Amino acid sequence: MMAKDAIAAAYEAVVRCARKDVKGDQTAGALLQLARSCLEYLGSACGRRSLTSRVPNKEYFAFEAKGSGRLSRPVNAALFDASSAAEGAPNVLAARVEDGRPQDLERILYTLGMSYCCAADVMKRQDRKTPGTFFEALVGHIVARTYGANPDRQVAVLNLDMQTSLPTDFVFDLGREKSRLHLPIKTSTRERVIQVWAHQRVLDGVYGVNRFRGILVCIAETNFQARDNSVIEVCLPGQWALYQMFIAQLHRVYYLDVPVKYGDLATTYPFIQVKPFAAFFREAQALISAPPAS
Amino acid sequence: MMAKDAIAAAYEAVVRCARKDVKGDQTAGALLQLARSCLEYLGSACGRRSLTSRVPNKEYFAFEAKGSGRLSRPVNAALFDASSAAEGAPNVLAARVEDGRPQDLERILYTLGMSYCCAADVMKRQDRKTPGTFFEALVGHIVARTYGANPDRQVAVLNLDMQTSLPTDFVFDLGREKSRLHLPIKTSTRERVIQVWAHQRVLDGVYGVNRFRGILVCIAETNFQARDNSVIEVCLPGQWALYQMFIAQLHRVYYLDVPVKYGDLATTYPFIQVKPFAAFFREAQALISAPPAS
Repeated sequence: MMAKDAIAAAYEAVVRCARKDVKGDQTAGALLQLARSCLEYLGSACGRRSLTSRVPNKEYFAFEAKGSGRLSRPVNAALFDASSAAEGAPNVLAARVEDGRPQDLERILYTLGMSYCCAADVMKRQDRKTPGTFFEALVGHIVARTYGANPDRQVAVLNLDMQTSLPTDFVFDLGREKSRLHLPIKTSTRERVIQVWAHQRVLDGVYGVNRFRGILVCIAETNFQARDNSVIEVCLPGQWALYQMFIAQLHRVYYLDVPVKYGDLATTYPFIQVKPFAAFFREAQALISAPPAS
Repeated sequence: MMAKDAIAAAYEAVVRCARKDVKGDQTAGALLQLARSCLEYLGSACGRRSLTSRVPNKEYFAFEAKGSGRLSRPVNAALFDASSAAEGAPNVLAARVEDGRPQDLERILYTLGMSYCCAADVMKRQDRKTPGTFFEALVGHIVARTYGANPDRQVAVLNLDMQTSLPTDFVFDLGREKSRLHLPIKTSTRERVIQVWAHQRVLDGVYGVNRFRGILVCIAETNFQARDNSVIEVCLPGQWALYQMFIAQLHRVYYLDVPVKYGDLATTYPFIQVKPFAAFFREAQALISAPPAS
């Protein structure tokens, strides 16, 4: 089978397994198979083109398909490590990460997340949908595995004489004594991010504030500028602060490659907690527990 | 000059004039020129293909380019009337509509709004951006002309030690004794519509409830299904009700072709006022005045 056909088949298996049981062993197996196929393809069928980084202390390259010359999205050179990822993936996909060093874990997660995205970039033009679906399955699986529970994709609304259902991103119900989680997952956010705060607001309004904790997970906010072969991070921290102040409160924002300006938000009002997704494993229980007195 | 080149040049003139002075005579002239070029092109270079309507009491067709066979979005047959539009456009673009019959006005507005959208559909594949920009200029011009004031695209936020600006859709400041307007304009909404309620929520939070009245203007919510040549209206009235209850309150939603299920929202809680855009001219002063006691 051609590498591209193998990747397409592995992608379809991920979608199929995740729809049935995102937490399950079959989903883990399909994600592992897909990541391996993609990393092999990127290593053998693509070169690397250096990009000019406009982001302090970060270096980027892009995969470049040997035949077509098509480029992938920008890849953070310090975080992409195919051999660590291949080795560490089985444990990460099983949510067994207690003994790892944080930097290793960040590299494994980033490389897994970018594997299919970059392969899709160089294989097809303008394919925005399948990388998003893949990344949602990957993060959904890891979170579901960590808590040992599958998420829902809608919640019932009962309000006086009104009865309807609200379609949502993944939501987790972990039992009476625990906070529920609202888990939107996006490869990047751009101007669409206000939707995440708005959905959180609806959940707060329908069910009460703090009943669902909002956890947004993203890959990165890089943007490639072809005219000078450079990479920037597209960030709107002032807008995020207004959304957090006036729409609803997100509990965490995790990135595989934390944008510099968003990382700074944790230290100024309204204190949006933006962190590497690797931190999720350490604080998974705290996220669903009663808050400490402040 | 080829018809397509004339349309492209007229479109560029609309964008240029609207950016400088959306209310101005030059914008009116450019919009008129563009609409005429498009209606002529649709009449001479395109045929009409009948579509199977799945919407009660509405009939649709699509323009079909004679060369490429490319189809436009679905067109409501009862509302599209090129000769009325050509005749009525100068008065509508000058916001002089006192004497018209409501149905005539609806047809003129619909035909103007669809003129460039359909031409762009059959001329280019997957051009979603320029129809949106055109429709924003058209509606922005009519509203600005009606009030005799140009809108802004951002508002200043001063909040304790924080000073930033919030980029917005068009906002109108009509003086101390008048309500301000928040005017998002979209060819159709789909799942992105929650952004409109979220932006309204931010404005309510920053400036106080009812300081800006939210007025959403759209063309239609039709969707063409190629597999059986049919047209449906994609509506989520239950979601809209939740947004209106739990995010913020839109004051009006105007459509050029009111979707059946959204038109019904005005009569059930939470009473979202969805109307034909033709009604705007009658109620323009009420929209910016103190509310009547209820």
